[in-house]
Parts: sequence; structure tokens; C-alpha cells
Amino acid sequence: MIDRLIERIKALGAPIAVGLDPTPDMIPQRLGKCDTLEATAGALVRFNREVIDAVHDLVPAVKPQIAMYERYGIPGLEAYIATAEYARSKGLLVIGDIKRGDIASTAAAYAAHIGGTQAGGQAHFPWPEDAVTLNPYLGADSVTPFLDVCAAQEKGIFLLVKTSNPGSGDLQDLPLASGKLVYEQVADLVSQWGESLVGAHGYSKVGAVVGATYPEQGRSLRARMPHTFFLVPGYGAQGGSGKDLRGFFDTNGLGCIVNSSRGIIAAWQKDSRFGENDVGAAAREAVIAMKNDLREALE
Amino acid sequence: MIDRLIERIKALGAPIAVGLDPTPDMIPQRLGKCDTLEATAGALVRFNREVIDAVHDLVPAVKPQIAMYERYGIPGLEAYIATAEYARSKGLLVIGDIKRGDIASTAAAYAAHIGGTQAGGQAHFPWPEDAVTLNPYLGADSVTPFLDVCAAQEKGIFLLVKTSNPGSGDLQDLPLASGKLVYEQVADLVSQWGESLVGAHGYSKVGAVVGATYPEQGRSLRARMPHTFFLVPGYGAQGGSGKDLRGFFDTNGLGCIVNSSRGIIAAWQKDSRFGENDVGAAAREAVIAMKNDLREALE
Repeated sequence: MIDRLIERIKALGAPIAVGLDPTPDMIPQRLGKCDTLEATAGALVRFNREVIDAVHDLVPAVKPQIAMYERYGIPGLEAYIATAEYARSKGLLVIGDIKRGDIASTAAAYAAHIGGTQAGGQAHFPWPEDAVTLNPYLGADSVTPFLDVCAAQEKGIFLLVKTSNPGSGDLQDLPLASGKLVYEQVADLVSQWGESLVGAHGYSKVGAVVGATYPEQGRSLRARMPHTFFLVPGYGAQGGSGKDLRGFFDTNGLGCIVNSSRGIIAAWQKDSRFGENDVGAAAREAVIAMKNDLREALE
Repeated sequence: MIDRLIERIKALGAPIAVGLDPTPDMIPQRLGKCDTLEATAGALVRFNREVIDAVHDLVPAVKPQIAMYERYGIPGLEAYIATAEYARSKGLLVIGDIKRGDIASTAAAYAAHIGGTQAGGQAHFPWPEDAVTLNPYLGADSVTPFLDVCAAQEKGIFLLVKTSNPGSGDLQDLPLASGKLVYEQVADLVSQWGESLVGAHGYSKVGAVVGATYPEQGRSLRARMPHTFFLVPGYGAQGGSGKDLRGFFDTNGLGCIVNSSRGIIAAWQKDSRFGENDVGAAAREAVIAMKNDLREALE
């Protein structure tokens, strides 16, 4: 998955993931009233299809945040799956932002998200992600089942290292007796977990989540983890901009994929030139602007 | 939720949660062949109903591990919900072991598990849990939306502090420059987050997950967090026993609820007196044995 991701980023010149995290207030009435769980789920899928149709030739990947679907129960999760399947049918890689993490036997169950599951002696694939995000708090044995899937299949994982939110410092920034910060120690573990899974382009199938809102930390992590690809949330609505991200890239202008959600999918609401028929057109324009912003930052 | 949990524990003399984490190898053929995702999901529910029917008058709560259902996709998650609803219909509290954790806006979406969600100006409750487990790695703002639900409704949360697995030490046991260990710092944060939510029995709606497999740490955390109720996994199959747990309880013999999964729900497979018609009878006997084991440890 990591090699294909890098090849697509190079081909498109766009290290961009579109965050498919719609909320009902972003969805034009013409796509359906969000008045029940089922109706909301249907509107989410129709909305996402318009975004995907408009951007699939510009970006390598989408990142649906499962919580924005899980909040609507079973119909919501059906919408998550339908969204991911539609994205894959358009050639996009799907990074499921699921942030799971549990003890080994349970982690093996969660690994169904990328590795499928057994029933009746056959493999079934109830979840459609190419890669997922994971939480490292439970340590190595919580990650091992995912490493096994990555070793056997073209799949990937991104471990939370330094998240984009204001509260990320509460735990992640604490200084350890060793002299490292907690997130630096996590970074070292993540590098180590990914060591044997480095692909053709020098990056491991085991990546890291590093928030755009912490540019200095991103720069120092880039140097610390030369074989770890970064998934970077926090661009745009959360405050990160292109110039903040220079240090997240390697000297070849690779090494990370930057996610933007609201800045792309709700772009139609933020400019008076656009109306409710322009979800796709506005998303496309926002992706192109983001691509230019990132390119300028790298020049 | 925490007050009702404590009252039920007192009334029953059983600080026990039954972990509803079945796998197909535990399910007798007569409950259905696990040869498709849908068939497996149906068998999980029928199995859980037998366990619930057999133990509902003995214990205050069940703890379904959502991963064991999520692995089967949508049918699996329908089985999770059906299991939880059936347990609630029998008077049991449901602690959903979901270990979610994300940035504030996303955490607000996950909070639908206990707080419901809005659609069409109305509250909907797509998830049936009374309490859920959460991961603290993202810090305070990832917990706030759940605290808001707990303040408004009879719901609870349990934050991971010291987990039961071998890898828990990789991150949780690291010594900080402050002199605390990482899990002790998390414990202090969890205590603080729960301060304003202490109920009639002196315990907060904000609890902690502390593994039975680490008795010394459990004892020291009990002293450190006098108003924090513990959810204790790792009893039985993972290696913890009653005498290890003495220190997890307060001087009134309260302060924690101990989970056992395989030791109860797969008890029918572990004793030649039982056959495939004895799922419930064996589970009931295992609960009674566990109750006695815990009572002896507290004497």
C-alpha cells in the first residue's frame, strides 16, 4: 500500500488525502433531509460520491473518519463502507481513520479492517480499508496482528505519534526520565515496529500520525524516523498551513500525506461564488489550491 | 451509572462483569454454523442469550468487547447491539469495551455510544451502552465530550490506565522526568477529569481500566485514586486470580468490578462434566466460583 501511495503522490504531484468526515450541516438539502439515522446515512453517501467524483483524478487517497459514521449506528457504518467502496472503485486508496488499539487477541479481531476475517473456512472482507490508523497506548502486542497483515498483504497502518489537537500535549509531550518526550519514545517504537516492512521507495508500511499544528515536532520527527511515512491531519480548518509543513517532507518532497477535511468537503459553503450545486466544483478548487499551497511550501 | 453499578454489586455480592467476547470455537453447533458473516453473527447472539439467561440474576454487568463483533462487519455490529439490548432487557448494565479516543470534534461523534446523536432535531440512540472504555493518549479534549454526557445522564466511562496485556509496559510503565510513571500520570489526569462527577457512594462516573495481571500497580493505584472505580480485565484466562486482586478493592470491599470472559462463557468446554447443552449451566457455575474466589480474597 505504501509503495502505491508514494507512486500515486508522485504521479499526481499531490500529497493529499481528502478527509471524508461530513456532518449534516455541510450537506445540501437536495441530497436528502438528515431527519433519521437512515436518511442521514443516505445523504452522507450521496455527498461523499459528489466529492469523490470531483477529486478522484487529483488525489491518491481519501481518509474517512469512522466516528462520523459510527455516530449514526448501523446505517452510519453502512455509509462508511459504501463510501470507502465507492472511493476504491474510483482508484483511490482508503485510509480508515479508526484509531483502534487493544490487547493482542482483540487487536487480531480489529485487524479484520485491513486483513479480513475467517468464517466457514473462507476469508471474508467486511471492511474496505487499504490502511488504518491505530493508537499505541497498549504497546507492541496490540500492533503485532496488524504487522502480520501488512507483511502478507498490500496494506498499511499509521500509529498515533503526535496528534493535532490542543490536548495532545497532556500525555504525548511529557518528558521521560530517559531524556526523550513520550511521543519521541512512541516514534522510536513505531520506527522499530516498521523496520522489516520498508518498501521499494524507502518507506515502511508502518507509518505515523503527526499533526500539522505542531511544525517543529514534525520537523524533528522527520529526521528521527527516516523510513516512516507521515499521515498529517490538522491542515486548514485546524490551523496548519503549507509553510508549516515544509519540515514534514523529506529532501525529495515526499514522506508525508496531508489530510484536509472541512477545507475541501465544505468548501462550497465558504465562498459566495458557490451554491448548493457546487459541492464537487468547490471541493475540486480547494484541492487544487491546497496542492499549490503545498508545492509553494516545498520550493 | 456508577451509583447503580455499586448498588447492584452490593446487593448481589458480586463485583463481576461477564465479558461477552465469544469466538466461533466456543459456540456449539446446535446454535448455528459459523460459515458466513451473517450466520456467525446470529450464532453469537444466540450464544450470548444463553449466557445472559444463566447469569443475569448473579452479576450486575456484562462487558461486550466490540472488536469481537466488528470483525464480522455490519452483521457483527448488529449482533453487538442485539446482545447489549438483550442484556439491558434482563436488568444488566452494559459496559461497551470500545477503547475509542480521538480529537474533540470526533470524540463528540463517538460519544453517541453513550449519549445518543441528533437527527431531524431529535435525539436518537443507535448504541446501547451504559458505559464505555476510552483510550487517553489524545489528552483532555478527547474526553470532554464524554464528560458532558456523564454530567447530563446516568452514564459512565472507564479510561485505560494500566492495561492487562504483556505489552502494556512499552509505554505505560516508562518513568517520567517528574518521577511518576506514565500510567501514574494518566491516573492523576483521570482522577482530575472525574472530580466533579463523584456520586452518592464516593466514586466518580469516570473510572479507570486497571489490569488484574499487575497486582502491585493495582494496589498503588487504589491508594492514588480513592474516588475512581476500577474496571479490571485479565482475571482468569489472562492469569489474574482473586488473591491478586485484594489491593484493587477499598476497605469496604468495593471500588472495582472484575471482568472475566473466556473463564465464564467458555466454561462448558473446560470440564468433562459439561456438554454442548451446558453453555449456561457452566457459565453460572463459573460465575459462582469466581464470586467465591473474590469473596475469599477479601476475607
